[in-house]
Amino acid sequence: MPTPATTGNRNDRRRAATRQALVRAARQILAEGGDTAVSIQLIAERADVGFGSFYNHFESKAQLFDAAVVDVLEEFGRAFDDHLSGVEDPAELVSGGFRLSARMVDSDPEVMQILRHRARDHMHSGVGLAPRALRDLERGVAEGRFLAVDPLIALTALAGSLLALVELRFSHPELDGDAAATELAEMVLRSYGLSVDEAAEVARRPLPELG
Amino acid sequence: MPTPATTGNRNDRRRAATRQALVRAARQILAEGGDTAVSIQLIAERADVGFGSFYNHFESKAQLFDAAVVDVLEEFGRAFDDHLSGVEDPAELVSGGFRLSARMVDSDPEVMQILRHRARDHMHSGVGLAPRALRDLERGVAEGRFLAVDPLIALTALAGSLLALVELRFSHPELDGDAAATELAEMVLRSYGLSVDEAAEVARRPLPELG
Repeated sequence: MPTPATTGNRNDRRRAATRQALVRAARQILAEGGDTAVSIQLIAERADVGFGSFYNHFESKAQLFDAAVVDVLEEFGRAFDDHLSGVEDPAELVSGGFRLSARMVDSDPEVMQILRHRARDHMHSGVGLAPRALRDLERGVAEGRFLAVDPLIALTALAGSLLALVELRFSHPELDGDAAATELAEMVLRSYGLSVDEAAEVARRPLPELG
Repeated sequence: MPTPATTGNRNDRRRAATRQALVRAARQILAEGGDTAVSIQLIAERADVGFGSFYNHFESKAQLFDAAVVDVLEEFGRAFDDHLSGVEDPAELVSGGFRLSARMVDSDPEVMQILRHRARDHMHSGVGLAPRALRDLERGVAEGRFLAVDPLIALTALAGSLLALVELRFSHPELDGDAAATELAEMVLRSYGLSVDEAAEVARRPLPELG
């Protein structure tokens, strides 16, 4: 017979699974074109959870869709951390994260449509890509690899350039996306104080394939 | 008695005035918080024009609101051209346009709310600020003031940094906006190939007050 603690854990797992099912359903809806006007009833059906359990987890649909975006950003962030785990140079980390993010326009266009429409709200937030970039920027400044830029301002330039690149890709589908991302990464590195030659070299270092 | 030509001109003027009244009403609505769900009937009443004349000018509400954003961007662009008319250095033109745009968060917060929500669509369009920035970027590359960057990529970095700065200002109202804009302008100039010292000097040149 389970102890209360075990029961609690089972309930916790069940709760977490319900929440995750709702978040997954919201991600699918966003990915399919972002019709966030869909009813909570339909979201719950899609998640295969009871209608009532929605409100055990979220106060509103907007809160659920926000959680879905956070979920995407965290997933990206963890994937980038994994793939860049051997890299020591903060300049390469920043440039690599930027170029990997930009590649998602090709590999995950539906997810990029989410980010395109909603990432703005998360540009300076504490989840997803922003805190990871900030960590690399702060390290780069501390180690003298970058000029003594304000990390929040440096993040603003980085995140803004990335979102603008995503827009450029969607509005100019004929563009070579990797080349554009590399040129922008190079510009960002120069803006942080790397020389023309250093920026050109770092921005062209080989990238891991994302699995 | 007016000739047909004069009648035509009067009609043209009347048509233009009606269109302008609708655009002005749309700008007011956007500035007040962007409730674009308002009915066409209410927009027409606000513009003091007949309901039917709406469709002589616009196919949909979305088209009207788009025209309103273009109108704002063109107004900004003309104002910047006026105020920077004596400036010859492309680096100063780019930095000045950037810093003047950023100041609008304080001087025209309602207008900046429009841009915040809709400018993304105009980041690479042929109206407003983008073609003017592109013109200055192309001149800077041609004159060797900038590295041989792709002007469209350079515009992407510039527009992205500006929109991200607007977001930063709205999410961090305690920030010194002018200082943040200057630091970002400096970063943008370095990304275009100016040296650390040149970028610091150009980004701090005095700006004209916008009237």
